[in-house]
Amino acid sequence: MPAELEKPDQCLLADETSLNESTLNYYRQIPLAVHKLLATCRKDSCFDHVNATPIPSLESVSEILHQARRILFPGYFSPTMLDSVNLEYRLGQATTELFEKLSRQVLLSIQHECMRYNQPCSRCMQLSHETGLRFIETLPGLREILGTDTRAAMDGDPAAKSHDEAIFSYPGLFAITVYRMAHVLHGLAVPLLPRIMTEYAHSMTGIDIHPGAKIGESFFIDHGTGVVIGETTEIGNRVRIYQGVTLGALSLPRDEIDRFRNLKRHPTIEDDVIIYSNASILGNPVIGARSIIGGNVWITEDVPPDTKVLLKVPELVYIGNNKP
Amino acid sequence: MPAELEKPDQCLLADETSLNESTLNYYRQIPLAVHKLLATCRKDSCFDHVNATPIPSLESVSEILHQARRILFPGYFSPTMLDSVNLEYRLGQATTELFEKLSRQVLLSIQHECMRYNQPCSRCMQLSHETGLRFIETLPGLREILGTDTRAAMDGDPAAKSHDEAIFSYPGLFAITVYRMAHVLHGLAVPLLPRIMTEYAHSMTGIDIHPGAKIGESFFIDHGTGVVIGETTEIGNRVRIYQGVTLGALSLPRDEIDRFRNLKRHPTIEDDVIIYSNASILGNPVIGARSIIGGNVWITEDVPPDTKVLLKVPELVYIGNNKP
Amino acid sequence: MPAELEKPDQCLLADETSLNESTLNYYRQIPLAVHKLLATCRKDSCFDHVNATPIPSLESVSEILHQARRILFPGYFSPTMLDSVNLEYRLGQATTELFEKLSRQVLLSIQHECMRYNQPCSRCMQLSHETGLRFIETLPGLREILGTDTRAAMDGDPAAKSHDEAIFSYPGLFAITVYRMAHVLHGLAVPLLPRIMTEYAHSMTGIDIHPGAKIGESFFIDHGTGVVIGETTEIGNRVRIYQGVTLGALSLPRDEIDRFRNLKRHPTIEDDVIIYSNASILGNPVIGARSIIGGNVWITEDVPPDTKVLLKVPELVYIGNNKP
Repeated sequence: MPAELEKPDQCLLADETSLNESTLNYYRQIPLAVHKLLATCRKDSCFDHVNATPIPSLESVSEILHQARRILFPGYFSPTMLDSVNLEYRLGQATTELFEKLSRQVLLSIQHECMRYNQPCSRCMQLSHETGLRFIETLPGLREILGTDTRAAMDGDPAAKSHDEAIFSYPGLFAITVYRMAHVLHGLAVPLLPRIMTEYAHSMTGIDIHPGAKIGESFFIDHGTGVVIGETTEIGNRVRIYQGVTLGALSLPRDEIDRFRNLKRHPTIEDDVIIYSNASILGNPVIGARSIIGGNVWITEDVPPDTKVLLKVPELVYIGNNKP
Repeated sequence: MPAELEKPDQCLLADETSLNESTLNYYRQIPLAVHKLLATCRKDSCFDHVNATPIPSLESVSEILHQARRILFPGYFSPTMLDSVNLEYRLGQATTELFEKLSRQVLLSIQHECMRYNQPCSRCMQLSHETGLRFIETLPGLREILGTDTRAAMDGDPAAKSHDEAIFSYPGLFAITVYRMAHVLHGLAVPLLPRIMTEYAHSMTGIDIHPGAKIGESFFIDHGTGVVIGETTEIGNRVRIYQGVTLGALSLPRDEIDRFRNLKRHPTIEDDVIIYSNASILGNPVIGARSIIGGNVWITEDVPPDTKVLLKVPELVYIGNNKP
Repeated sequence: MPAELEKPDQCLLADETSLNESTLNYYRQIPLAVHKLLATCRKDSCFDHVNATPIPSLESVSEILHQARRILFPGYFSPTMLDSVNLEYRLGQATTELFEKLSRQVLLSIQHECMRYNQPCSRCMQLSHETGLRFIETLPGLREILGTDTRAAMDGDPAAKSHDEAIFSYPGLFAITVYRMAHVLHGLAVPLLPRIMTEYAHSMTGIDIHPGAKIGESFFIDHGTGVVIGETTEIGNRVRIYQGVTLGALSLPRDEIDRFRNLKRHPTIEDDVIIYSNASILGNPVIGARSIIGGNVWITEDVPPDTKVLLKVPELVYIGNNKP
């Protein structure tokens, strides 16, 4: 090869080497950074999960929720068509898979909790299968109550075109579906998993329902972003709420928080109540049956049944040439 | 093999069998649960989609939206670089793929609707191709109006560093992009799909715009979480709104909801209006051009043009040693 | 092959051809639509990124954030178990990968910015490695401050069952984790990337924290949907805020927006302040240490330390048989 043709190659090589050399200098400093990172791990001020049991996986929880939804609304979210001939086979297969995946995550959750309290986990495997089966057995009941929620969406929203539209696309119905599943597992005393489930729905919908809340049938949440329903809330049948509604706790001084961890500190909403957007009901008042709570209202005390609570029309200040 | 070496294997086998036996007992109870689940399917109280046409797929809708966005903002969301030499080829290929994917989901949506009304679907295939093409033909117009929206983001937000930052990362611009596409399909009378699209954007951004709303050019939504824009809302040009703004319907008694399904029940916002965070405008008042609606205001009546509407400064209660 | 067997094939072929012919007619119109789309690309009214450098990828940014979170909370989000034997090896490998992925996206961001100002990018590669390393070096500090945020979540929420529950599932902690990383890169003057990061967290949580905000240790956001924290906000230590809280800018006339781009236009929140749900603090007032801001309050002026600010109980209008 003639000498003059080698030059570009050499130049290129030289450039690359100097680049590599410079880059390598940065790489060489990584071990020191990692060493410092490991040093901080040993302090009490950080959190790690080293030398520990494996933990529930967010991906698996998401798979479980979508698998369960395919069973609860058969045919709506399946890539393949369902017909009455293959229905039992497919539903059986899907339910078995759900049992397996759910039992596995329940096992990891229980083992994690045992480890946290330094307790042996002798019955963990059996308990997780037991829980998985109990959950499967609630599916028929869940289907029925989700049927009432679906009809409530259609009945409560003038923009709803069909039940199918609600099932396909309403975030409120998705959040309620996930909450109802998480509530079952919460009732079966499964740690961690129920909250991971409702926070998944929170992330997808902006609707934050604690798994511990008790909610009756025909529940409808319209739009939903910003809704918060606290741990000890109780909601009756045929209740309708809108975006931004908070059913929350009253403020607590920092030193009293531990004392309130297991008390009822959220509202009770009786049957047929409607709560409009951005209303906040705080503490544990009772909102009586058939009452209507207007938008932006801030309530901390009981409301009798059959009552409308509205903000007094605020005095508005108009500035401009055309004051009314 | 000597007999004493077989023992451990047998023990292991025995252990595994006993474990399996316990586990199998749970598995054995699954068919009964599935049987009960199938039994409830036959009640009127549940929803299923069995013996039905295949349905639109949420994954496909998401793919369509991202594919269309790559076409509407060429080069911004593509893994490969675009240059003027390969642009026509790549855009042509991307547009053809969009046509195919969209036509397919339109077909599924129309077939689903035909089935719901027990109507034959003889022209479904042709209609879906027709719709796919009409949509493709609106892309140049969509590019232009989205250009005005992009400039509105830069002009309306002091934190915006560049148009590119808005295109890359502003949730308001993403929600408006999806809404404008869904609105085209809504105008072409496609069932189901437009709402699935805007609910996808709602899930990603917390911004809930009904595909039926009419929105002019240079529209800017800042932050956006909690925004609700109802089905029959009309918004003029150069309007700016902030997080938590509701353009919604007034409350309806349960027995009147059906009567209102096709009436105008949401506000009209004229040109150059600004609406600050968490304001609610309900029913169908007209907010006159160039008016400014302050934060947290709750309005149900007309506002003349060139008007500022502010809450009277609320009387605050200060508790503490340092009252002002 | 006997003649009568060919017929079905021919019929099928005929059907397919006629279908194809109709379909092909639609395909034939696509090039015209693409041509029109290309024509609009040349107008000033649209945005494209053609003949440009490659750009940061949203997928890569998401990978970087999750990789960094696995390092900051070792063992919590890993599919494989960590033990003290493999910890250094795994952490070293994960950190090296993070350095590589982050440096790459920083490079793309810097190149994009250079191109925008038509400036040469001679030190881009070195600068991006430098930035990647500086970021890695902040990881120990980030672990420590995130430890204080994790304890603040447990201490501030009566519904919290354990630190692990907060780490696994609290959206507020996720948003703060992402913000703290983005704030480091913002401090290193990386363009584009920090905002893409916080908008990713915004999309997942409904919590919108600008990377430029300054936030002290032990910060807790409960529920979080709708929270907005603006670019020039300053927050002290041990501050607690709830869903829907806005720390935002006051309204600006359109012609003054550019003038305000680099001024402090957001609030200062001193140590130990609590701000309840849907409160808005706008402009740049100072909220004094240990003060409590009640829900739905709208503040634009300074609040002295040790002060409670509450809305005067609104006059409610009760309608019904059972007025209290």
